[in-house]
Amino acid sequence: MAKMTRKKLAEMDRVDPLASFRDEFDLPEGVIYLNGNSLGAMPRAAADRARRVVEHEWAKGLIGSMNTAGWYELPSTLGQKIAPIVGAKPNEVVLTDSTGINLYKVLASALQIRPDRRVVVMEGSNFPTNNYMVQGLLEQLGDGYTIRYAEAENILDAIDDDVAAICITHVHYKTGNILDMAAITDRAHAVGAAAVWDLCHSAGAMPVELNACNVDFAVACTYKYINCGPGSPAILFAAERHHGKFEQPLTGWYGHKAPFNFERDYVPVKDIRQMLSGTQPTVSLSIAEIGIDLMLRADINEIRRKSMRMTECFIELVEERCREFGFELVSPRDSAKRGSQVSFFKEDGYPIVRALHDHGVVCDYRAPGNVRFGFAPLYLRYVDVWDVVDRLRDILSSGSWQGAKYQVRSAVT
Amino acid sequence: MAKMTRKKLAEMDRVDPLASFRDEFDLPEGVIYLNGNSLGAMPRAAADRARRVVEHEWAKGLIGSMNTAGWYELPSTLGQKIAPIVGAKPNEVVLTDSTGINLYKVLASALQIRPDRRVVVMEGSNFPTNNYMVQGLLEQLGDGYTIRYAEAENILDAIDDDVAAICITHVHYKTGNILDMAAITDRAHAVGAAAVWDLCHSAGAMPVELNACNVDFAVACTYKYINCGPGSPAILFAAERHHGKFEQPLTGWYGHKAPFNFERDYVPVKDIRQMLSGTQPTVSLSIAEIGIDLMLRADINEIRRKSMRMTECFIELVEERCREFGFELVSPRDSAKRGSQVSFFKEDGYPIVRALHDHGVVCDYRAPGNVRFGFAPLYLRYVDVWDVVDRLRDILSSGSWQGAKYQVRSAVT
Repeated sequence: MAKMTRKKLAEMDRVDPLASFRDEFDLPEGVIYLNGNSLGAMPRAAADRARRVVEHEWAKGLIGSMNTAGWYELPSTLGQKIAPIVGAKPNEVVLTDSTGINLYKVLASALQIRPDRRVVVMEGSNFPTNNYMVQGLLEQLGDGYTIRYAEAENILDAIDDDVAAICITHVHYKTGNILDMAAITDRAHAVGAAAVWDLCHSAGAMPVELNACNVDFAVACTYKYINCGPGSPAILFAAERHHGKFEQPLTGWYGHKAPFNFERDYVPVKDIRQMLSGTQPTVSLSIAEIGIDLMLRADINEIRRKSMRMTECFIELVEERCREFGFELVSPRDSAKRGSQVSFFKEDGYPIVRALHDHGVVCDYRAPGNVRFGFAPLYLRYVDVWDVVDRLRDILSSGSWQGAKYQVRSAVT
Repeated sequence: MAKMTRKKLAEMDRVDPLASFRDEFDLPEGVIYLNGNSLGAMPRAAADRARRVVEHEWAKGLIGSMNTAGWYELPSTLGQKIAPIVGAKPNEVVLTDSTGINLYKVLASALQIRPDRRVVVMEGSNFPTNNYMVQGLLEQLGDGYTIRYAEAENILDAIDDDVAAICITHVHYKTGNILDMAAITDRAHAVGAAAVWDLCHSAGAMPVELNACNVDFAVACTYKYINCGPGSPAILFAAERHHGKFEQPLTGWYGHKAPFNFERDYVPVKDIRQMLSGTQPTVSLSIAEIGIDLMLRADINEIRRKSMRMTECFIELVEERCREFGFELVSPRDSAKRGSQVSFFKEDGYPIVRALHDHGVVCDYRAPGNVRFGFAPLYLRYVDVWDVVDRLRDILSSGSWQGAKYQVRSAVT
């Protein structure tokens, strides 16, 4: 490949079909934000929406906004909107609660497909909260339920006739490794197991085809690549073929067949709303619509193309310009197997992340030793890739990151 | 009692020690809002807070706001703040998730105090979502767990040696009837059962003394009398003596001993944070602080005094001025036994509620036949009580509520 230059990258920006989306975001001056895989940036329209829902719908509409502003239906109406982003039908998705609580609901449901089996297959190196939630569920269920941990290279082998369900994350939070949703789901179905997927690091960053892959249940985060705002309620997907055929344990009134009849006994509605429990945080939920609308305007194939190109350029530049400083690529080198992030192993990576931050580059660190750079194609430019590597090289060659100020860990990293 | 007049009520407003709080709220012109028991009004400062958290903390601080804006700690810091409002210690409360999901967590925990028992005592006429959540939990637990339904008059009798836990709501959502927290909790403890309370209709409306009553676990809504905003995250209380001695099933990373070590296996932190699961809806959660701060500035005994006086005046005026229209008091007549709402039974009450709405009075209807009027002492005036009854009388005597436009039920009431 010909040597990469900033000029070439600027030319790529000039012809980038997604370039105009950057103006839709309110980004801080001078900052290159490579943490959209933790929290997406703020779409400008979210500010107006926040004002509307607080100062108009809440203050003036008061409880009437449950109807007049559509608050009560938001988990469903936003679920319908967001469905195509994950390859689902509009009646298969709701926006509600947190990813972890949704995982609890969908796995408890999925296990009912094979009540005769007791094994759930998960990646041991997965983002821990998924393991924690499943540990909590299985401990509560008792009766011999266990998790069989596997890693990317042996997941298929781990799926045998003992398996009730797989509970797998599409893109790995540390490495960005993409698992083959179609192949793993097929393998699960071939042995009669249910397939549950977590899309936290793929939804909004690449095409996700839940129905084309025949997935049974799924959850996803909306505050990363879909830019719905901090802690915004999460995606919950249940394939239509399962509707009305399972019970989920968090049986709140939003999942009742007739919630406003105020009947004593729970009777689930036989559609996706069965997955709802209680009243949702309306301000956060309403704002989420802005990120969804923006994402729906973008071509997800263009997002994926840009994401692959950006991460390719980044790896090339780091390996070329920072080679002597011992960054070791953790993410897959093949961009077809890599999500929208690049992680390098660097044992003393934490102070480097702190120093980058002081030089206007926001990325993060996941112990032990993973320096993560997330690339959100809607608001990043190709030249940003150049500039980040430039600043990284400056920091590394000056040794400034070795100063005492960068050694102390903060509470949250 | 001497005949009530608008002038007398205006005089009560003049000397009301809480009168100045009304200016802290942004209330719509011409509306008398008697639905603070569904959704509290907006404190003016909430608008600025919403702008700050969206336009500054999210847009400019991005993921760094987890630390710099204290996002990560909000469930705990707001729990510490809100604790005195329910008579708890600062280390016994978190603000998180929905009331229903919190109920699931605390009851699952409380049942571990008496693992040898299988009965949960609840009010059958309770707000249904509580019954639904407990039905879901007990069905999931299996193993013979059942609910024993009782009503106010026979709850004490229902608590016997078979009972593992009571799960009781302090103030009834339809009638406003207050249950005796101390006596019922004492009875539960006398038979060795755990006491779980729901404070949705009492928190912020009257003194609540969880620790003085020796309550084990509790949940409460923050968007009613505490004015934290639509669907704001809920209160979860666990008495300190139980910390570290139970498992709650929704085991997310926020409840882990060392969440940023990213360990595979769940090890709970041995304090109130064990009750946390996942990332919270930050915008809604941050705004909640405004309502809490406002409530902390008010004397809860004054709130209770005003609430009792307002509901007394309201009952007196309705019975005096609307007697011939067949409104039948459902709420306790003794204000010591009545929460901050008054409900009347009126079989064809729904169109009357709609007509009142068109005349600037917001109250609500709970099938079958309950017309509810909620009195939030922080922003209502005594003269509002007069004016509501005036408008009610006009509607009833003109018969305008019998017009076709008020007969159709909307989706949410």
